[in-house]
Amino acid sequence: MNIPSPFITLTTDFGTSDVYVGVMKGVILNINPNVQIVDITHAVSPQNIHEAAFTINSAYRFFPKGTIHVIIVDPGVGSDRQAMVCKTEDGFFVCPNNGVLSYLLQHLESEEDGTSEAVIIENPTYILPRVCNTFHGRDIFAPIAAHLSLGVSLADIGTPIRNLIRFPFPAIHTTHDTLTGQIINVDSFGNLITNITEKVLIDFLLSSESNEGTVGELDKHTISSQFEIKAGRTSLKKLNGTYAESEAGKPLAIIGSFGLLEIAINLGNAEAHLGLKSGDKVIVRRSV
Amino acid sequence: MNIPSPFITLTTDFGTSDVYVGVMKGVILNINPNVQIVDITHAVSPQNIHEAAFTINSAYRFFPKGTIHVIIVDPGVGSDRQAMVCKTEDGFFVCPNNGVLSYLLQHLESEEDGTSEAVIIENPTYILPRVCNTFHGRDIFAPIAAHLSLGVSLADIGTPIRNLIRFPFPAIHTTHDTLTGQIINVDSFGNLITNITEKVLIDFLLSSESNEGTVGELDKHTISSQFEIKAGRTSLKKLNGTYAESEAGKPLAIIGSFGLLEIAINLGNAEAHLGLKSGDKVIVRRSV
Amino acid sequence: MNIPSPFITLTTDFGTSDVYVGVMKGVILNINPNVQIVDITHAVSPQNIHEAAFTINSAYRFFPKGTIHVIIVDPGVGSDRQAMVCKTEDGFFVCPNNGVLSYLLQHLESEEDGTSEAVIIENPTYILPRVCNTFHGRDIFAPIAAHLSLGVSLADIGTPIRNLIRFPFPAIHTTHDTLTGQIINVDSFGNLITNITEKVLIDFLLSSESNEGTVGELDKHTISSQFEIKAGRTSLKKLNGTYAESEAGKPLAIIGSFGLLEIAINLGNAEAHLGLKSGDKVIVRRSV
Repeated sequence: MNIPSPFITLTTDFGTSDVYVGVMKGVILNINPNVQIVDITHAVSPQNIHEAAFTINSAYRFFPKGTIHVIIVDPGVGSDRQAMVCKTEDGFFVCPNNGVLSYLLQHLESEEDGTSEAVIIENPTYILPRVCNTFHGRDIFAPIAAHLSLGVSLADIGTPIRNLIRFPFPAIHTTHDTLTGQIINVDSFGNLITNITEKVLIDFLLSSESNEGTVGELDKHTISSQFEIKAGRTSLKKLNGTYAESEAGKPLAIIGSFGLLEIAINLGNAEAHLGLKSGDKVIVRRSV
Repeated sequence: MNIPSPFITLTTDFGTSDVYVGVMKGVILNINPNVQIVDITHAVSPQNIHEAAFTINSAYRFFPKGTIHVIIVDPGVGSDRQAMVCKTEDGFFVCPNNGVLSYLLQHLESEEDGTSEAVIIENPTYILPRVCNTFHGRDIFAPIAAHLSLGVSLADIGTPIRNLIRFPFPAIHTTHDTLTGQIINVDSFGNLITNITEKVLIDFLLSSESNEGTVGELDKHTISSQFEIKAGRTSLKKLNGTYAESEAGKPLAIIGSFGLLEIAINLGNAEAHLGLKSGDKVIVRRSV
Repeated sequence: MNIPSPFITLTTDFGTSDVYVGVMKGVILNINPNVQIVDITHAVSPQNIHEAAFTINSAYRFFPKGTIHVIIVDPGVGSDRQAMVCKTEDGFFVCPNNGVLSYLLQHLESEEDGTSEAVIIENPTYILPRVCNTFHGRDIFAPIAAHLSLGVSLADIGTPIRNLIRFPFPAIHTTHDTLTGQIINVDSFGNLITNITEKVLIDFLLSSESNEGTVGELDKHTISSQFEIKAGRTSLKKLNGTYAESEAGKPLAIIGSFGLLEIAINLGNAEAHLGLKSGDKVIVRRSV
């Protein structure tokens, strides 16, 4: 037995206009009426595994330890792709084995105690009696999450697996004077979120300077005139500390709430006005 | 007194961009702070009673027995249409008497123990002191649901009614070699859901064959080459077991999670690509 | 210490397609796992303080006393605008000091016991250790709300402030025979909600008549032929008691569920069909 958890979160591409999400909640509450269910989002773009992976990795660490996270973006539903439960120090992840944990597993490995174990969902005791091949959310993932919240152990659910599927990450290329990443997510405000972490950016910007041991919070003033961030036709010469530092309507670069470099417009929508989208390159060039 | 219930679900056409749903939750929690409220959906098309009827019938059976379901798609709000509570073996349904329970009542009658009783909402004790004629959700349905969750009985709420309003169902026509139904719902993935149940389809496809007692799960292989499903210009010759059986982008027919025949596109949106919509005919033709 | 509250509501412009709302819920449940979180709406138009002010004022009074309301529409996030907690007889309001409480404070003052007190959020004990300047919802407002729900007192959170920011209200102009207000909100049904309250309208319509002490519920019949409501090219000569009193598709005027004059279309969308929008004038003219 595991320790029972009072929380289950849901991350899906089901939208909220159909009954699918409501039905999953009914199934969960039928098995464990005492659990509290929290929606992370149901608006992942249909069948977009990459977006789902970004979403759960951005959210899970803010929930109580032991929380059970259900992630269903599952283009292969009903095929022979595996359904699984992955357990980490932070909680449980119930999902298809199709890459939706890619960012999370990468993040785990970058931490010292980042171990994980996973099993294939096999035991029919913990799923609905009749499984429909178009809605494993209802028939497999929801009941498994509910049983986990009651304390059922991974060993009881199925056989261990080691090879969790991961998609290739959007790469970051570095040369002597450039760092090239890309936009990996656009939020509903139109903020363009890149795969360049604060740490990678600091290390790159400081590596040509005679700084020793200065890595920490970015000192925007020290380096403010020494680089250019370019994305499409947008060129930015400094890193903002707040949106409000820039005039309304002006594009800006900032380390956003995910700890990633973002391109935004103060009081505006960068996606709509800069003609940029997910996948577009973002190049940081420094004077050396 | 009834047995108190810890769950109230909400199905409305209120959307989630206004305060209406939040206000209803406030009213409920003010009366019973211990109830858990679950959204089924608030995105029923405005004033679409048929869609509401499909929605609640698809969802209610997955919730714990005794759950109180509030369904508000109410074009006649404030007129002399009745507000009611209907009680079945499965739970309570709080709604206008305007047809939103049509599918559910039909489904009940097809089951052996499918009894129901209903009352008109009359007792002012259980509704808000001042009723606004444009928002019975807040002033009548939410407080009634909250009082039901505390154990108030139907007899205490109002007078029994027998004639629950039902809309005429989209018909299914059968000839010697054709079965004609129609698309009754389109989900947010663009899947086209028909009114042809798995059982009706099996019975039709098997009735010309020398099968005895084979009704049960559909044996797709046995009958795979013996029929054609036609909707608009789309013609399908087999019934999939999973989406993934078909190539990406190809239309397919499948018994979906509602137990109904659906037309879908693997990894795509059938509504957008096949030019089909709710109300369109779907014809199954068999070789005899 | 305050009395702990079991409820926190959320009103934001974050949308529900990103992780922001889910993350805030995680932060709250991490601090107080026993609180129930209710969404009022996350679809306030981006950075629209006026709409947020209308929303929270329309919703808060339906929640149990002591409920903690978090309102985050915060174009100045990260700038020197203050983050605050305001406490009234009804509950707590956690928000930027940027005008989002304008309607609520006005409403309070119109009531006899409408006192309020407010503090700036200062004590680092009750916020996250590292504050990101683009997401105070997660790092400041959510943890403060969670600590309030545990009973932390205002005095413990920060220094009192008196000058809560309010925006100038859309004015109502009255002449001898006209009352001019404006559309201040459009709901998702397309109903056009004005800033003319039932009381203002009654007082205006009755003031020329020899009525003494008749103020109370509007007697629509008495005054039905004595006035015209004009908005754009729409002219209405009576006040409906229900939508259904008018033919389907016809525009109508009605006192809606907010207690405000609304222009609507029975079974239709007034915004879409009448060419009217937020900010447009609505003129009531009476025969004298």
